Amino acid sequence: MAVRIHIAAAILALVFTVVHASNPSPLQDFCVAVPDANAGVFVNGKICKDPKLVKPEDFFFPGLNKPGSTANPLGSNVTAVNVNQIPGLNTLGVSLARIDFAPYGLNPPHIHPRATEVLFVLEGTLVVGFVTSNPGMNMKNKLFTKVLNPGDVFVFPQGLIHFQFNQGHSNAVAFTGLGSQNPGVITIANAVFGSDPPISPDVLTKAFQVGNNVIKKLQSQFWWDNNYP
Amino acid sequence: MAVRIHIAAAILALVFTVVHASNPSPLQDFCVAVPDANAGVFVNGKICKDPKLVKPEDFFFPGLNKPGSTANPLGSNVTAVNVNQIPGLNTLGVSLARIDFAPYGLNPPHIHPRATEVLFVLEGTLVVGFVTSNPGMNMKNKLFTKVLNPGDVFVFPQGLIHFQFNQGHSNAVAFTGLGSQNPGVITIANAVFGSDPPISPDVLTKAFQVGNNVIKKLQSQFWWDNNYP
Amino acid sequence: MAVRIHIAAAILALVFTVVHASNPSPLQDFCVAVPDANAGVFVNGKICKDPKLVKPEDFFFPGLNKPGSTANPLGSNVTAVNVNQIPGLNTLGVSLARIDFAPYGLNPPHIHPRATEVLFVLEGTLVVGFVTSNPGMNMKNKLFTKVLNPGDVFVFPQGLIHFQFNQGHSNAVAFTGLGSQNPGVITIANAVFGSDPPISPDVLTKAFQVGNNVIKKLQSQFWWDNNYP
Amino acid sequence: MAVRIHIAAAILALVFTVVHASNPSPLQDFCVAVPDANAGVFVNGKICKDPKLVKPEDFFFPGLNKPGSTANPLGSNVTAVNVNQIPGLNTLGVSLARIDFAPYGLNPPHIHPRATEVLFVLEGTLVVGFVTSNPGMNMKNKLFTKVLNPGDVFVFPQGLIHFQFNQGHSNAVAFTGLGSQNPGVITIANAVFGSDPPISPDVLTKAFQVGNNVIKKLQSQFWWDNNYP
Amino acid sequence: MAVRIHIAAAILALVFTVVHASNPSPLQDFCVAVPDANAGVFVNGKICKDPKLVKPEDFFFPGLNKPGSTANPLGSNVTAVNVNQIPGLNTLGVSLARIDFAPYGLNPPHIHPRATEVLFVLEGTLVVGFVTSNPGMNMKNKLFTKVLNPGDVFVFPQGLIHFQFNQGHSNAVAFTGLGSQNPGVITIANAVFGSDPPISPDVLTKAFQVGNNVIKKLQSQFWWDNNYP
Amino acid sequence: MAVRIHIAAAILALVFTVVHASNPSPLQDFCVAVPDANAGVFVNGKICKDPKLVKPEDFFFPGLNKPGSTANPLGSNVTAVNVNQIPGLNTLGVSLARIDFAPYGLNPPHIHPRATEVLFVLEGTLVVGFVTSNPGMNMKNKLFTKVLNPGDVFVFPQGLIHFQFNQGHSNAVAFTGLGSQNPGVITIANAVFGSDPPISPDVLTKAFQVGNNVIKKLQSQFWWDNNYP
Repeated sequence: MAVRIHIAAAILALVFTVVHASNPSPLQDFCVAVPDANAGVFVNGKICKDPKLVKPEDFFFPGLNKPGSTANPLGSNVTAVNVNQIPGLNTLGVSLARIDFAPYGLNPPHIHPRATEVLFVLEGTLVVGFVTSNPGMNMKNKLFTKVLNPGDVFVFPQGLIHFQFNQGHSNAVAFTGLGSQNPGVITIANAVFGSDPPISPDVLTKAFQVGNNVIKKLQSQFWWDNNYP
Repeated sequence: MAVRIHIAAAILALVFTVVHASNPSPLQDFCVAVPDANAGVFVNGKICKDPKLVKPEDFFFPGLNKPGSTANPLGSNVTAVNVNQIPGLNTLGVSLARIDFAPYGLNPPHIHPRATEVLFVLEGTLVVGFVTSNPGMNMKNKLFTKVLNPGDVFVFPQGLIHFQFNQGHSNAVAFTGLGSQNPGVITIANAVFGSDPPISPDVLTKAFQVGNNVIKKLQSQFWWDNNYP
Repeated sequence: MAVRIHIAAAILALVFTVVHASNPSPLQDFCVAVPDANAGVFVNGKICKDPKLVKPEDFFFPGLNKPGSTANPLGSNVTAVNVNQIPGLNTLGVSLARIDFAPYGLNPPHIHPRATEVLFVLEGTLVVGFVTSNPGMNMKNKLFTKVLNPGDVFVFPQGLIHFQFNQGHSNAVAFTGLGSQNPGVITIANAVFGSDPPISPDVLTKAFQVGNNVIKKLQSQFWWDNNYP
Repeated sequence: MAVRIHIAAAILALVFTVVHASNPSPLQDFCVAVPDANAGVFVNGKICKDPKLVKPEDFFFPGLNKPGSTANPLGSNVTAVNVNQIPGLNTLGVSLARIDFAPYGLNPPHIHPRATEVLFVLEGTLVVGFVTSNPGMNMKNKLFTKVLNPGDVFVFPQGLIHFQFNQGHSNAVAFTGLGSQNPGVITIANAVFGSDPPISPDVLTKAFQVGNNVIKKLQSQFWWDNNYP
Repeated sequence: MAVRIHIAAAILALVFTVVHASNPSPLQDFCVAVPDANAGVFVNGKICKDPKLVKPEDFFFPGLNKPGSTANPLGSNVTAVNVNQIPGLNTLGVSLARIDFAPYGLNPPHIHPRATEVLFVLEGTLVVGFVTSNPGMNMKNKLFTKVLNPGDVFVFPQGLIHFQFNQGHSNAVAFTGLGSQNPGVITIANAVFGSDPPISPDVLTKAFQVGNNVIKKLQSQFWWDNNYP
Repeated sequence: MAVRIHIAAAILALVFTVVHASNPSPLQDFCVAVPDANAGVFVNGKICKDPKLVKPEDFFFPGLNKPGSTANPLGSNVTAVNVNQIPGLNTLGVSLARIDFAPYGLNPPHIHPRATEVLFVLEGTLVVGFVTSNPGMNMKNKLFTKVLNPGDVFVFPQGLIHFQFNQGHSNAVAFTGLGSQNPGVITIANAVFGSDPPISPDVLTKAFQVGNNVIKKLQSQFWWDNNYP
């Protein structure tokens, strides 16, 4: 039976990331968000509940020990814990996420426009990487890549394209902190090929220097749940 | 003859953008950059020359009236004027660029990781757009798009994918300000398919859900000058 | 007729500036301003419309190709494009302006309290300059000045007094980006001699070490439109 | 046997925190720190290595899967992963830590002067809390407290006193992200009673309204390793 | 009679501090706070009154020449002048305080979570000090201390524990500026031993390594007015 | 004798100001400045001495109890205490100044480009005021003015023109904190009429709409010490 348990642990490999971005400093101890649906007034960030009514639960979120479902084409799942889940994070500039990977699961190339990310692998083996911005005339964007094992930490600088790929035949799990109460995620494939309305094929065929049929195929298939927050 | 003049004007169409990002505030009147090649010491931004030696030329850059060459597969050219061209911009959080477009020229989907952009069309007709970050479960990234004519101004929020496409049969020109001394540019196609070393085809076939041959074609062709700064 | 056209071009000389300041970072993709008149609630910056109702027009402003009237004592005109004109600029820290100059027109000494400015001369010849803050005991404030021709770019650091003067006998035009959604303008002459209520002549005669009659003359004449935004 | 497994899991309880603070925004993709010992020049943060020499290992740190030793009077241990361990975190405003707790182990009341913290409990049961700043005349500082179980997340706002206490009879483990490349830790007991030189007993007897003998005892015992980074 | 006067002056000794923290930049000339009781909407900082209704009194506060009562166990009194007293300070990132000391009066160890402080001694003799954050393995937190006389200025860096003690047999007075519109104060003794609800004695006996009776005594006595703002 | 003392007190009236601006947040407890003359390397702010060599004196400055000489045409004197006087203020965003006024002495219209100011009148009577930025088409810049007596506090928002005038027949003294380690001062008269090289009379006659003789007189007389830091 001990053997079965070890296998379970291997399948439940786990990664942890922390992401950051520069944000406005808080001007009081805390400013717990009113949910958008109740807000009435919108501001940079969120309006806050009356500080006299704030309670410990406003700083609390349960359930990050539960794996998200990886039954999708990418074989990965992101469970976000940001200001939309913990209203107490408002004005405080940080958030978390848990990422689950099926075997060969991929958190595909994406950008956090408002946060650096630090990722921690709890268990499993991930190939991760980020690509620098355009370096200059006749030079290629540089890929920084590394194979991560349990206990390994890696940094994805703010605003750069990055990805995590489970190259092993068992599950992996990571945790990620994001240095903004609302870091945002731009999944490259979905934003470029799956927007509503779609970007004109004239733009995309020229941008990627491929035929209209390739662009059409790419645009046709981003039907799945793309909510990587 | 009036007709000929109108045609000339159409060919000389011109766009202007201004891009911004939040930066550290300056702690003195100015802090003129020492070029990296002479610096010896690297910091967030650039080290500065002795303030006693600063002269008006440190705040000056000529030649933004000259069109860049659009003889490339995209039919566009970006002439950047940032802290690498004007050392006096160091610590001051802004920069400029001129964008030239041949007929049907494209400034392809890209991101400025450190700046919002405001674009001004001097002349010509451009289709522009930006795509929001992932909006949530089962929702598509939203494209905000608009056709711009001479005198029109449009905003591309920091960190979002955006593009400009000259849909007319004459040249166009835009100017763009970027709200960082060094806004950075990530051309999506080059960063994803043209990095050095390349991102593994295992990652890209899964991310874009296409066959290995499509990825190979995409990876093979990003040989051109991709320096959109 | 070609000759007449060249003259027309000379008369239509044009300048472009970009100005910047450090601002709070955005905490979402965008936060489109509700106009003050409809706001009800005032905050640092502006409150925002419901993000679900945002449309491309919120990021758009037309007409910057039209010269402003220079039929005033200064012979210049500033057309501002900031958060009051483009609500989509709210939280994004940048704005634009167009400056037109009649022959010998002057954009008089002024300060942007919340922005650095980068100016681009489209056509025409401008003498521009900025003055440093007080340098120290027994030292004079230093003027950095330069003659700008079409295509030239110049930087005016945040909070420093600066001016642009068309020294030629034809019109000039510049564009200017300002590194704040609301950079502010303080025209020195108007703020010092034309405020409501006026600054006491006791203060001004001592500050400028001139007789009461000079101060009275200065205070009597700032009747013109001083809205350089 | 399932019972034994549950016990094992309880003994391996684990917590994860992410802490944040507002920091200067980066002005380039990355600015990898030169270690202080090699720096020669000190700045706000760290000077950076030549960007041409940066490699993936600069963004990497291994070993966060290994528990720290809790064989000390507090029964807890903090393993920090900040800019001193990962030079690539320089300018990027985030860091991590792992906290291990023996049964009844305590991460004692402390403050991060430069970061909000978000804590994630991997396994185990922790009592956590933070105390607000002085609320006003004749009002007591308010304690926000909560019992956390595996998967629970809790926020400790920047600059407020907080603690984590393992109230169970088995080990616990947490991970913590800190929203600064160098968040700092002020352990209250050590800073007040264990500084070098010591704070005068005249100050401390009055501040805590206790006799000299109590202060002497408190000052005599902070001999243990107090490095909670 | 001259002698009596000197004594009076000695009794009226006076200190002045200025404290600072990094805050969001203002996005308009001013944004005068609406008092919380009238606000209806809460944000980071305060919402503002209609700028058309702002008047000079919004930037004004009288009475800082009057000593506060030092008839309390600490023998000191802090009179704060922050955004709660001057609504015009909203968004502008600074505030003031006056501190009065009876002979042997103490402004006890405390932290400003959102501000650096600069203190100026008008008259009197104060022993002041601040303690660094945890310096590293097997090293003690360092106390920086100094005796201040009239005219002396001293800096207490943001977020560090500090105190001021009047070691003379006459009154002292200081003024203090705080670099936030709402710097916050955490009096260590009150926050640790006087919170509501109290921190569990299990936590405190372990944190301070003293018996339950000492903790009980410490917790029993923080009944006095602890409003050091 | 009591009478003589009251007169002395009236003559020694005293004002206190605190000024602020948004600055980069510190990334360590402190970063004590190396004086420019010894620095070798210049950065945004100042480079820092080795933290191991920092001592209490680095945070200290004496002598703010001594009045500055008001024997000059303005009858006022500013004694600054900023990062140039206290190296420990580097990265901490605040500074102080003392202002002395002879009877009818004037701290003339000036701007702090990098700081809001809070002023405290120790004794004496001052007329103070600030002028808003340009309010809009056909509206005048608004003067906010107030008469201040001992104990009164007044706010001058960042970047706005302001002044302080001693309208009484006895001395006055104020203290001022400035919300930047290096707030900067732009004395309007000196910067506009006393720069080196001078601003062209063509610019100034047009800007102020006065004859060349008035401008020449204004330009000829700014020979005095203008170092209001």
